[in-house]
Amino acid sequence: MARVILLPGREKRLLSGHPWVYFTQVGEVEGEFAAGDVLEVCDARGRFLGRGYANPSSQIFARLLTRRRDEAIDREFFRRRLEAAAAYRKKVVKDTTAYRLVNAEADFLPALVVDRYGNYLVVQFLALGMERFKQTVIELLIEMFTPEGIYERSDAGVRAREGLQPFSGPLYGEVPKFTVVSENGVRYRVDLHAGQKTGFFLDQRENRKAVAELAAGARVLDCFCYTGGFAVSTARAGAGSVLAVDSSGAALELAAQNALLNEVAGRCTFREANSFDELRGLADSGEQFDLVVLDPPAFTKSKQALAGAVRGYKEINLRALKLLVPGGYLATCSCSYHLGEALFLETIAAAARDARRTLRLVELRRQARDHPVLPEVPETYYLKCGVFQVF
Amino acid sequence: MARVILLPGREKRLLSGHPWVYFTQVGEVEGEFAAGDVLEVCDARGRFLGRGYANPSSQIFARLLTRRRDEAIDREFFRRRLEAAAAYRKKVVKDTTAYRLVNAEADFLPALVVDRYGNYLVVQFLALGMERFKQTVIELLIEMFTPEGIYERSDAGVRAREGLQPFSGPLYGEVPKFTVVSENGVRYRVDLHAGQKTGFFLDQRENRKAVAELAAGARVLDCFCYTGGFAVSTARAGAGSVLAVDSSGAALELAAQNALLNEVAGRCTFREANSFDELRGLADSGEQFDLVVLDPPAFTKSKQALAGAVRGYKEINLRALKLLVPGGYLATCSCSYHLGEALFLETIAAAARDARRTLRLVELRRQARDHPVLPEVPETYYLKCGVFQVF
Repeated sequence: MARVILLPGREKRLLSGHPWVYFTQVGEVEGEFAAGDVLEVCDARGRFLGRGYANPSSQIFARLLTRRRDEAIDREFFRRRLEAAAAYRKKVVKDTTAYRLVNAEADFLPALVVDRYGNYLVVQFLALGMERFKQTVIELLIEMFTPEGIYERSDAGVRAREGLQPFSGPLYGEVPKFTVVSENGVRYRVDLHAGQKTGFFLDQRENRKAVAELAAGARVLDCFCYTGGFAVSTARAGAGSVLAVDSSGAALELAAQNALLNEVAGRCTFREANSFDELRGLADSGEQFDLVVLDPPAFTKSKQALAGAVRGYKEINLRALKLLVPGGYLATCSCSYHLGEALFLETIAAAARDARRTLRLVELRRQARDHPVLPEVPETYYLKCGVFQVF
Repeated sequence: MARVILLPGREKRLLSGHPWVYFTQVGEVEGEFAAGDVLEVCDARGRFLGRGYANPSSQIFARLLTRRRDEAIDREFFRRRLEAAAAYRKKVVKDTTAYRLVNAEADFLPALVVDRYGNYLVVQFLALGMERFKQTVIELLIEMFTPEGIYERSDAGVRAREGLQPFSGPLYGEVPKFTVVSENGVRYRVDLHAGQKTGFFLDQRENRKAVAELAAGARVLDCFCYTGGFAVSTARAGAGSVLAVDSSGAALELAAQNALLNEVAGRCTFREANSFDELRGLADSGEQFDLVVLDPPAFTKSKQALAGAVRGYKEINLRALKLLVPGGYLATCSCSYHLGEALFLETIAAAARDARRTLRLVELRRQARDHPVLPEVPETYYLKCGVFQVF
């Protein structure tokens, strides 16, 4: 096995628990290797740090799979990791047929995502090194979880940085385009072949539940509603009316079907519009709401575009605040990793100052527990969800 | 009504939403007033900022009750505030007969605490100005919530800073020393006359529930267990065994009664000991646990003692980490306001580095939602509860 020797002093982040070796940290590589091979990683003095797969054409040169010298990267390695991932979900996932079974780095399986939608699994292989283990992983998933089918949705943009082509398609069994999952008593129709991420925003599950608890009797506005996750769950929890806005007609069609499926269509209105514009239009026409949900797509995927993203978040929050009755609730999210928690909260506070409204924080929430966070790997914490009462 | 005129430029914090006027911000006071009177607060140019009660012998010279020029501080003012506080609890409090009805500054009623324990209310008047409204508040509480009795527990240390004597005793009706409350299906016997805070750590309610969800089949260690909140709720949720440690014999007696009350006494062991020593002793004897709860008292109540407190938190977390099996869970709390969230997390991370353990954050929790946070009033956020899986 080839050995990566780090530059002197560049082992700190790895030692603290981060699994990535950046190209810029690499001193030399001893021995022959092909892209995707598992290598040994050592510090400049040759001290063993771990074993991981390498991709010399990626900025992330290697990702550690193990830190144990005695742990081989073989089929049993993947079985243990998958067993641990499943055991964790047994503890923290409740009342749903859809959840994330493997969350990549946070499950010590870098660049591998496995989501469960009832009897189907949807998988993503997001790095070349993990791609190389695809057959092993798929065989184990079949053996351990006996799904009816497995579908690959390796069409995320990050694949390009690994020099990989996007790929979507069935890997095993039959996977229908649509399936229905049940989450906290709410049923959702999910597009397994082409939905956002692997079909549904699983990471918002616990936030949907928390927000729905505030919805009884409320006039709800759900902006960037996608396929109606918050809209339908709040309606189901007794909202008086729900106005749900998204710019995607296809997403809204599914949202409307979800409303029907849950027998709340009579209380839901779905509107195809730009949420920025719609928020302004509603304010201009003097509309008022008791609960506003803002769950926008990431306004930035890079540090460079952060200032513009902050302006965008501030703007939608400002507009939402103007629509809320005194004592109403704002559930506001950001899934931009580059917008950290402190800046996210400061941006909402700034919007409140401009709107001359007082905020009270009910809860500061994150991604659901099946998407755990490694404190030493900041990249694993991305979804913020602030639930505020507004005066 | 007398007017407090702030020094030039010292209105910023008030404008941002903080309700306190420090003595050092005050320029002059126009007009006569007695300690505890309601005054008008203005900036240096005479612009109205709000109305609040004053105490010239406190570092906090005044606390705003309203920012609305047209809002008088009368009986109806208190009725509106209490109604809003109760309406909020209807939204966010579930499955319990005990909760905080009024959380002082965070309910825009500075220095007033009202906790509900079934049909009894326990109240705290923690500033002179609020003390002056005691009769109005008590009359409204009786009228609006028809309690069987109201007990005052104004024995918190902060009263001294207001020049007030501690006071505990009945204010209305009959309040027995002990009552039994029910929280998420767990029953707790509470000492209403002399328990910590107003009798029970209500602020940990949602954390008790979250931690109990991890407890099925687990060997649990609960340090600083007080009257057994975490111990009994984890046992009730199916823990295989619970060892609960506290230095107070009286607290442990109540904890043991709580175990009996919930029919889990056979799986609970209560041990009177210093938790620091006990953690070390358990490690020395090679004990292992699947779930460790650390809910210590505040190690510091001042900024000055922070360094020592950090050492204390690091030490107990380090010891707890050594006791956990790989894949076990650590629920670790700090109610020290002066230990901010970032430093709290860094302290646990440092303990993990020393213990050579890897942490995975399941959830970062705070005080329960009936203890909401005003983002502009940092003092309202004090309780951190990190739930980690430990490898």
